[in-house]
Amino acid sequence: MGRSLPRRRFLQAAGAAVVGVPTSVKGFTTTEMRSMAADDVIQADISKWELDTPALCVDLDALEANLATMQSTVTRNGIASRPHAKTHKCPQIARMQLQRGSVGICTAKVGEAEVMLEHGIDQVLMTTSNVTPFKIERAMRLRRFYPGFVQATDTPDNARDLSAAAQAAGVTADVVVDVDPGGRRTGITPGQPALQLAQLIDQLPGLRLVGMLCYDGGSQHVQGFGARRAQTLERLAPASETFNMMQRSGLNTEIFSGGGTGTYNIDHEAHGLTDVQVGSYAFMDAQYLAIGGSSDDEVYTDFQPSLTILTTVLNSQYEGRATTDAGAKACTINQPWPIVKGETGMSYRSGSDEFGTLLYDNPSRTYRTGDKLEVIVSHCDPVVNLYDQMYAVRNDRVEAIWRIAARGMSA
Amino acid sequence: MGRSLPRRRFLQAAGAAVVGVPTSVKGFTTTEMRSMAADDVIQADISKWELDTPALCVDLDALEANLATMQSTVTRNGIASRPHAKTHKCPQIARMQLQRGSVGICTAKVGEAEVMLEHGIDQVLMTTSNVTPFKIERAMRLRRFYPGFVQATDTPDNARDLSAAAQAAGVTADVVVDVDPGGRRTGITPGQPALQLAQLIDQLPGLRLVGMLCYDGGSQHVQGFGARRAQTLERLAPASETFNMMQRSGLNTEIFSGGGTGTYNIDHEAHGLTDVQVGSYAFMDAQYLAIGGSSDDEVYTDFQPSLTILTTVLNSQYEGRATTDAGAKACTINQPWPIVKGETGMSYRSGSDEFGTLLYDNPSRTYRTGDKLEVIVSHCDPVVNLYDQMYAVRNDRVEAIWRIAARGMSA
Repeated sequence: MGRSLPRRRFLQAAGAAVVGVPTSVKGFTTTEMRSMAADDVIQADISKWELDTPALCVDLDALEANLATMQSTVTRNGIASRPHAKTHKCPQIARMQLQRGSVGICTAKVGEAEVMLEHGIDQVLMTTSNVTPFKIERAMRLRRFYPGFVQATDTPDNARDLSAAAQAAGVTADVVVDVDPGGRRTGITPGQPALQLAQLIDQLPGLRLVGMLCYDGGSQHVQGFGARRAQTLERLAPASETFNMMQRSGLNTEIFSGGGTGTYNIDHEAHGLTDVQVGSYAFMDAQYLAIGGSSDDEVYTDFQPSLTILTTVLNSQYEGRATTDAGAKACTINQPWPIVKGETGMSYRSGSDEFGTLLYDNPSRTYRTGDKLEVIVSHCDPVVNLYDQMYAVRNDRVEAIWRIAARGMSA
Repeated sequence: MGRSLPRRRFLQAAGAAVVGVPTSVKGFTTTEMRSMAADDVIQADISKWELDTPALCVDLDALEANLATMQSTVTRNGIASRPHAKTHKCPQIARMQLQRGSVGICTAKVGEAEVMLEHGIDQVLMTTSNVTPFKIERAMRLRRFYPGFVQATDTPDNARDLSAAAQAAGVTADVVVDVDPGGRRTGITPGQPALQLAQLIDQLPGLRLVGMLCYDGGSQHVQGFGARRAQTLERLAPASETFNMMQRSGLNTEIFSGGGTGTYNIDHEAHGLTDVQVGSYAFMDAQYLAIGGSSDDEVYTDFQPSLTILTTVLNSQYEGRATTDAGAKACTINQPWPIVKGETGMSYRSGSDEFGTLLYDNPSRTYRTGDKLEVIVSHCDPVVNLYDQMYAVRNDRVEAIWRIAARGMSA
């Protein structure tokens, strides 16, 4: 899966392919990383403060603690985790999740599923329906090579298209019904429409019904645990009733997947639910920190912020502020804005494409040009989607560089 | 620069490296494109409506018209264009700009400069200061290999660092003074501080002063031509005065670069300005369309929207709306939101990570699941930064696929 490569040899190997990579200077450029793109794990041993910036970092202690917390919680609650790889897009993190007991991973796009399956992640539930002939054929080819690939559908027409494509490809495709929790975004209406779709799948040649999913994205960020729990259970109730109807009809309900990081300790209360499609819990971000948890109504402390961006101050000559090298192209413009780690009395803005802005208001420290600082990301999913690699850090040492192999796989 | 590759051979070549690429099905996946990453131009001939989605498309007729309009305008106004490659990150577009008379290109990051110079773009002005030893050394190595590379500085300390690094590298580095237009983001204060920095550069060993730059990002999107012109000229006046002071001191002022797409037909009124660092004019976007121009105060019609995202409808079963496959990871969350091309009575939202939302309000048409539609991008720079390639389209035929070789080069 990975290979050990001393830093010196790595830089020399990379230097052969690119201009301007002196072995005497610390740091890795994106160009260097791209020249190593065949590897998805590269061993390293340097200080994170030596990294060229902007750099996306994941703290291994925090990541591992988050995976452990999730796994012990869902186990205690009698369900499983099926983490969503749309968040990390990184085969190495998927491996870690499976090694710790997750029953599989989810992907949002068929391109992500291709990457994960090709990288040895063998249980993949694609949560979005494939509706074009091209994508359906890709899904069926995946199914031919990878028996652990499961796909979703949310209309009878699409189920018939899948059936025809499965027969043409000579495969039996495992299919779940995507049930709408009320957002009217994807999924079929729960109750009779969903039941009838499940019955149709059960009868169509080339398809094997394996259950249902119901992802309630709209409940994940509801502020306050009590309000979030109430909304979640109300919105999952029709899906649970659908599950009951499917069970009573003798249909296969081995999978009832749903939920997310904001509701991971609520979803098991919905009858029938088998696993949570949690994504952000691995990294956390400013958006999730703000929702509050069961033990702290102001800050969501169940998981630790593990994902940060290292950035360098480019300009410190104006009063009350500084300019950094991490703007919208490195942080996105999602809000709440990135949070400066370990400091108080300052705020960060990444609204400008190329530059971040630090604003001081009774700051715990100020920065000079060339100084580096670390910010907790605003919204982990789209931030990860900006980077080709992330640096795996423990106690401020970079232990490895992980390729974000499914970055940009929106198709 | 590119190579001709019939589509069938391309798909076969790509198919050897990836799973699930049937030659009988139309479309290119990101995985396919990555397997061709060594080429930055691939010839093609398919309908754009056959592309897998989300897909980033550039209309060649519109792009070429935009480049022609810019070049004829700046020529008429007695200045030059030095387009900013931070917008397109694409060597092929940089080549087109130089072929049509631009005197060079700009880059925001040293990583972008490396990519452009390595791809044969020989005149590159890096508009951001390099402040860390690693980036300064990269810049000096670029200078050793590429005599057309110019870099910016905005403090005496940094100028001294550049001087030391230039001497250590055995090069003479061309340097411009970055002057702040009042945004206090980057650049030194105009007037005496800027003059003294210029004089210092002129005296430091290893450096050659070649002029100044002053980029007024804050004026580019001022609504209405009159207000924009007034603010621009007021904010450029101190830079022009700095230019005069440098000239009177006998300093080299061959470059005075500034301005952008919103002010390209205003900037030449600032005394001394030699060229405009225009970027978005090549593509346009919903943000620039909204600023109004000299002939139309509501819509900025000087340039044509050439950059679009093709997207597919995934769900059409709910009243008054549809869900597409292009959300925040394909469109960003910049506003104004993407505009559905050629249609009225509907709006688009890309606030959700994976999915776009079409909202109908007396729509010119409605869409069924599987239908494709095209949206004008919200803000071109960060949207381009999400994609590894763009499709070059003329009359709805894909003529070529261009690699966005500097995508993600935020460092």
